[in-house]
Amino acid sequence: MVTRSTIMDTNAFRPGDPTGGLPPRTAELVDRRSGVLGSAYRLFYREPVHLVRGSGAHVFDADGNDYLDVYNNVASVGHAHPRVVAAIAEQAAALNTHTRYLHERIVDYSEALLGTMPDEVDRVMYLCTGSEANDLAVRVARAHTGGTGVIVSAEAYHGNTELTSALSPALGSAQELALDVRTVPAPDPYRTPVAAEDLGRWFAEQVAQQVADLERRGVRVAAFLADSIFSSDGVFPDPAGAAGFLAPAIEVVRRAGGVFIADEVQPGFGRTGDAMWGFARHGVVPEIVTLGKPMAAGIPVSALAAQTDVLASFGDHIPYFNTYGGNPVSMAAAQAVLDVLQEDKLQDHAADVGARMLAALREAAADHPRVGDVRGAGLYVGVDMVADPETKAPDVAAALDVVEALRERRILTSVCGPGNVLKLRPPLVFDDQDLDRLIDGFTDALTALGH
Amino acid sequence: MVTRSTIMDTNAFRPGDPTGGLPPRTAELVDRRSGVLGSAYRLFYREPVHLVRGSGAHVFDADGNDYLDVYNNVASVGHAHPRVVAAIAEQAAALNTHTRYLHERIVDYSEALLGTMPDEVDRVMYLCTGSEANDLAVRVARAHTGGTGVIVSAEAYHGNTELTSALSPALGSAQELALDVRTVPAPDPYRTPVAAEDLGRWFAEQVAQQVADLERRGVRVAAFLADSIFSSDGVFPDPAGAAGFLAPAIEVVRRAGGVFIADEVQPGFGRTGDAMWGFARHGVVPEIVTLGKPMAAGIPVSALAAQTDVLASFGDHIPYFNTYGGNPVSMAAAQAVLDVLQEDKLQDHAADVGARMLAALREAAADHPRVGDVRGAGLYVGVDMVADPETKAPDVAAALDVVEALRERRILTSVCGPGNVLKLRPPLVFDDQDLDRLIDGFTDALTALGH
Repeated sequence: MVTRSTIMDTNAFRPGDPTGGLPPRTAELVDRRSGVLGSAYRLFYREPVHLVRGSGAHVFDADGNDYLDVYNNVASVGHAHPRVVAAIAEQAAALNTHTRYLHERIVDYSEALLGTMPDEVDRVMYLCTGSEANDLAVRVARAHTGGTGVIVSAEAYHGNTELTSALSPALGSAQELALDVRTVPAPDPYRTPVAAEDLGRWFAEQVAQQVADLERRGVRVAAFLADSIFSSDGVFPDPAGAAGFLAPAIEVVRRAGGVFIADEVQPGFGRTGDAMWGFARHGVVPEIVTLGKPMAAGIPVSALAAQTDVLASFGDHIPYFNTYGGNPVSMAAAQAVLDVLQEDKLQDHAADVGARMLAALREAAADHPRVGDVRGAGLYVGVDMVADPETKAPDVAAALDVVEALRERRILTSVCGPGNVLKLRPPLVFDDQDLDRLIDGFTDALTALGH
Repeated sequence: MVTRSTIMDTNAFRPGDPTGGLPPRTAELVDRRSGVLGSAYRLFYREPVHLVRGSGAHVFDADGNDYLDVYNNVASVGHAHPRVVAAIAEQAAALNTHTRYLHERIVDYSEALLGTMPDEVDRVMYLCTGSEANDLAVRVARAHTGGTGVIVSAEAYHGNTELTSALSPALGSAQELALDVRTVPAPDPYRTPVAAEDLGRWFAEQVAQQVADLERRGVRVAAFLADSIFSSDGVFPDPAGAAGFLAPAIEVVRRAGGVFIADEVQPGFGRTGDAMWGFARHGVVPEIVTLGKPMAAGIPVSALAAQTDVLASFGDHIPYFNTYGGNPVSMAAAQAVLDVLQEDKLQDHAADVGARMLAALREAAADHPRVGDVRGAGLYVGVDMVADPETKAPDVAAALDVVEALRERRILTSVCGPGNVLKLRPPLVFDDQDLDRLIDGFTDALTALGH
């Protein structure tokens, strides 16, 4: 089996890697872990981090050291937020059961959640993971359209079930893609040789070519599945808006009979600063929306929201049931997260701090030829490391060196794209002090990297 | 689209069903719910139950009425068990993050969990739902064996992802089965016209026929996937033991190059009384084991345990990651559940009370011709309702009448099999008082049913 290096393996300590150089307590835990977990498990960093506590955008290791978290979107309202913790504890102490009994929480939360979406998106179903949501979304799209083809971006990651793995080129070449899946390059204004105002037209052409390629093989397109910031491809949020790159591509898919599935697992819940949802930044209304990671601060819950008629083709015939999905504890956690997001105006905060983060990173990297591009929306930022600013050749080693240099300074990040793009995606409560610490660390890391 | 009535739709209040006859507060919540949730959602009972609190084997509605729970295996240690609630609250207040950082809880729990399994089953991975675990299990089996065929029982339910739905005939004919899936009738000693001592040979022949049918089409078998009590087919736990029905069927599959995946989502964690795991009742060692529902009292977590070499074919090549799977809160909840199960000897308790339940149900039904068979293991019991004890024709209407009559007496049950088998599967803390209440209700329900 031939495998290429994958994003998910890039910043990874693998089972069986030597533990001799690690601190004794870390080494012991790594060895015990390798003795019981499957070989697919990976740890971040050359020296894995052993975390025991968290608060805000900070996490603490077993020795009490403070780490700045610039990576975890699941804890979007901050680690161990007291209000979320209280909601979980209170509901767990009362009742935790399934959706075949009536319960207010799922109804209250659904009304609140759908209230943040376009009127057309008026029904919701609950599951436990983003993978489950995308798996169901594709099945719903196929039932509704009668087509089977799916178009994703070239480095997309949409989940770990059989169906969604086969839609996830990011998993590497050992993971087969489905025969009716086609990939398009991400709308990358840094490397694509077209003017910014032409990127939308160019991207729509890429999608149209793949739709045509499917149709030539007798396959009708069911869906274009994308997160609107192309996080796994390397973070490409712009140009957004109704004149941005997304709307023309969706129009191509709709003309061919397919639907748009907005995977909001990454951009959703206010992260991009500009809007509650990634699709809303682009002024488009999806037929299907999938939600996950930051939804309930780590209590496993995800959702599929959709237009009634789109969902009906599937839901009227198949009695879908998810035992844990939408249970009262999950709903209590999700409600608390949504309340904190809205009351503390974390979307606006993400816009403000994110804008300062972009500016400060660009300033820190201004004279450094290995930083090819800094881009992002709100608190989702990518730093594109290149071997040479002229060729723009991705420099995975440089990106990893920066990640490890930051980790030595107790600043937690990772990479995305082909492995050369620093992924900066902190809890939304990240503040200006946190930003200063990040920028100091980043400046040091670039100095250590050399030119 | 032609659909047949399905198990999952049998005991169901559907969106759009008239709410006029319901109590006003129930009707209002049902209507609000129908206004936001997808049409695939169902509620139990002609008059849905609105639950707000639970304790032990009892749940309480919004008016404070006490219901006896004879259905929910997720709350196997009892609803809202204080020790589980405390473990969840404590860990949520400290940290909830993912498995790319080191954490003791996943290592401690994995050691404890694998300690309950045969030595050969020595590696574990965590996911969030039984569906995800079965989805991954089939992919692992295919990677290991090089085959793709899967054999399941005729009314099996193994999950709601695309892959596992296509292995789940219980979802009804609107759900397509995969081309490389074959079904076998469950080992039903009540209706199969063979002597009990011949059931194993007979069942192995059914499996062998399907293996041969796959091979004739060039498909090698990858796995026989079954829960060892065939819960969805109507509860068929016996004959168990090394001379029972399971071992010969597995032997057939292994000779053809396949593996046995033990789906322990239903029988696992002590429910059958005889053993911690359903496969252990049969003296067999699976290549792969999947765990779910009762694992963490409703906090969404599942697991796949397997033999190292079986898992390696997949795990050495595909960097599987599950964001929420095995997170510290899930592991804290799972550890507390396992501790309570073991310290309170709930498996032994299930054996004792389960034996009394079987005997009492049989006594109550002795003179009733519509009760064709009462069978079970531990606290998983099926009551097989028939139109006529001679023909043994399944009587779905009678089973539903009993379920509704019990619900009127605030005793919560449902059905399985083709819809004619009462499914009695209470929390394992179900005690003799609870049993008396169930038997009184059951006796009344049979009386109301008439002969």
